[in-house]
Amino acid sequence: MDSVYLDHVAGTPPRPEVVEAMLPFLRERFANAQSLHSGGQEALQAVEEARERVAGLIGASAEEVFFTASGSEANNLALKGMALAGRARGKRIVLSAIEHLSVLNAAKSLENLGFETALVPVDGLGRVDPADVRKALTKETVLVSVQTANSEVGTLEPVAEIARISRESGVPFHTDAVAAAGNIPVDVHALGADALSLAADQFYGPKGAAALFLRKGTRVVPLIDGGVQEGGRRAGTENVPAIVGMGRAAEIAAAEMTKRIATETSLRDRLIGGLLERVDHSALTGDPSNRLPHHASFCIEFIEGEAMLLHLDMRGVAASSGSACTSKSLKVSHVLLAMGVDHALAQGSLVFSLLETTSAADIDRVLEVFPPIVEKLRRMSPLYTKFLEEKTP
Amino acid sequence: MDSVYLDHVAGTPPRPEVVEAMLPFLRERFANAQSLHSGGQEALQAVEEARERVAGLIGASAEEVFFTASGSEANNLALKGMALAGRARGKRIVLSAIEHLSVLNAAKSLENLGFETALVPVDGLGRVDPADVRKALTKETVLVSVQTANSEVGTLEPVAEIARISRESGVPFHTDAVAAAGNIPVDVHALGADALSLAADQFYGPKGAAALFLRKGTRVVPLIDGGVQEGGRRAGTENVPAIVGMGRAAEIAAAEMTKRIATETSLRDRLIGGLLERVDHSALTGDPSNRLPHHASFCIEFIEGEAMLLHLDMRGVAASSGSACTSKSLKVSHVLLAMGVDHALAQGSLVFSLLETTSAADIDRVLEVFPPIVEKLRRMSPLYTKFLEEKTP
Repeated sequence: MDSVYLDHVAGTPPRPEVVEAMLPFLRERFANAQSLHSGGQEALQAVEEARERVAGLIGASAEEVFFTASGSEANNLALKGMALAGRARGKRIVLSAIEHLSVLNAAKSLENLGFETALVPVDGLGRVDPADVRKALTKETVLVSVQTANSEVGTLEPVAEIARISRESGVPFHTDAVAAAGNIPVDVHALGADALSLAADQFYGPKGAAALFLRKGTRVVPLIDGGVQEGGRRAGTENVPAIVGMGRAAEIAAAEMTKRIATETSLRDRLIGGLLERVDHSALTGDPSNRLPHHASFCIEFIEGEAMLLHLDMRGVAASSGSACTSKSLKVSHVLLAMGVDHALAQGSLVFSLLETTSAADIDRVLEVFPPIVEKLRRMSPLYTKFLEEKTP
Repeated sequence: MDSVYLDHVAGTPPRPEVVEAMLPFLRERFANAQSLHSGGQEALQAVEEARERVAGLIGASAEEVFFTASGSEANNLALKGMALAGRARGKRIVLSAIEHLSVLNAAKSLENLGFETALVPVDGLGRVDPADVRKALTKETVLVSVQTANSEVGTLEPVAEIARISRESGVPFHTDAVAAAGNIPVDVHALGADALSLAADQFYGPKGAAALFLRKGTRVVPLIDGGVQEGGRRAGTENVPAIVGMGRAAEIAAAEMTKRIATETSLRDRLIGGLLERVDHSALTGDPSNRLPHHASFCIEFIEGEAMLLHLDMRGVAASSGSACTSKSLKVSHVLLAMGVDHALAQGSLVFSLLETTSAADIDRVLEVFPPIVEKLRRMSPLYTKFLEEKTP
């Protein structure tokens, strides 16, 4: 039985071309990109080519792209680095309530250094209202950060408008585009962002490579001090193989994005329609239309996400329930709670996120195996028993 | 013409077994180690096995090992994390003057947050006197950090004694063991360190994987906040392939260290003796006996390190001049200046650092090609001309 991997949001498989591009740098071309000898110069050239490719994916200049080791690191560098760089002007940062934990928890750390955080609410579809961002801005605000897309519910945010509002107030704007970049068109100029995070493992690149775009002139205090790498913004020996892989993945993503989006959107809608039809007491979470093309997320009433995941896994289907970064903490998703989803219902969160290689047969397989799992789990659910008893007169 | 790579300090080639161990995790076993499905659980198991192996290399428990993406990140996490965790007690940190830039510059960042740094001097061989560390300690000191070995001059520091002095004063002790771990025996209990940094690319592991040992109970404020990875000490999707590679490299290093040290020491001494004999106005830098087994460093009078590197490179020999992290900044090494080396002489810094695969023939090749390079460069050197004129009556 071949398994069906529908956990794009936790990480995509590197494309074979990506792995091929990386291999020489794991073997004979292993030199340090800062070394002056020819091996080092070749490594540096490969890093700079990758930087061009990543910049190309998001419409940036190469010198505005700074490699990090993860999307979380890019988000921390943006949040802490930009807040600390602006601390002479003020100590307030404005975020949406449904940011990734690497943004929210970076803000909590900043609070220990005297900063205050304003959380902008979202509506029932997970949408930030730009007017709420405007209301949250004060003269002391030094950073606004709102994600491009939410990885738990798939909703796309009106970041271009939020960026415009920030710019009008002279406040730097960062967007966590980790879930979006490489999957949908993301252009830093169209968005008007001063800083933008992206990660290779969200678009068929390797783990260990991510980047922060910083518009020319955007000030940031480094998270990792040391040598001269990454223009002094991020010290540490460059992970040349991973960076090269990210560059190759960016190049492929740019070339194949339109095709990917078309395939994924069609299969996503087949999955959403089919599941809502076959499983009663189920609901789509997030925005039904303005969402990531590979993203189908649900709340399934009366049962828990983790139990569904384990039963799906036994039937060869890999999915997720909220963020991989929190899967072990067994907390109910802060995203669903912020959207006003009932606490009990939020426990039944389930995300199927498609790959570019996902087929209609894969979707049909999920639609075949999932309803019996729900039925089985509900038979064991005290909540469901209670619900049925209350319904029966 | 096969090239001779003598730039171990800038990075070692991953062992073939290391790359083999990584490959499945770049391909079919790509899942996120935090995912609950079986792919994720397998990835997590691989990460935990690697953690055991890295712990084994340094005599730690697995739960005391926290993966990072570079030695610089591990050093920054130790410096900033431990200093910030102790800031209620005081704001003074004590370092040696010849620490790696990732330690020194992390300390500079801490100064912007109100900390003060005391730099302990070194002698002409690059040795810290533990009595100087004792003198530098005050009631406000919250961290002592002294490296295990210096990557520019090879000198081993008396870290066990410094750790004892710190412990007696109740001050946490960190050692940057990036240049040492995996190359010489490093045991966290024998050293008595509370925190220790190591990096895979210094012992035939991949780039992108490093670790910070934190003794149980050692408090640290994370550098990267977010998810639950690395016990909450370092958020971000685990770079599973690199971590697996580091684990394999640690296992091999532990098994082969004794043999490596014997080979390297003998070849190193052949190189040191041969070079000093063949090149006049040359001097060994660092401690002649108590030094890294793979490390031969010199100052060559009247010429510049960079010119020597380029000419060596043209003859197929890769070497370095000081730290790869600073090679582009064209500054004279802070290490040599702290050792009291004359500014002009320090510009002629050259480091040959051996690999486990370096042969006697490689050393003889260097001894053959290097003296003519020196002769040629000196003929073009105004400093040398002046020296000859002054010598001639």
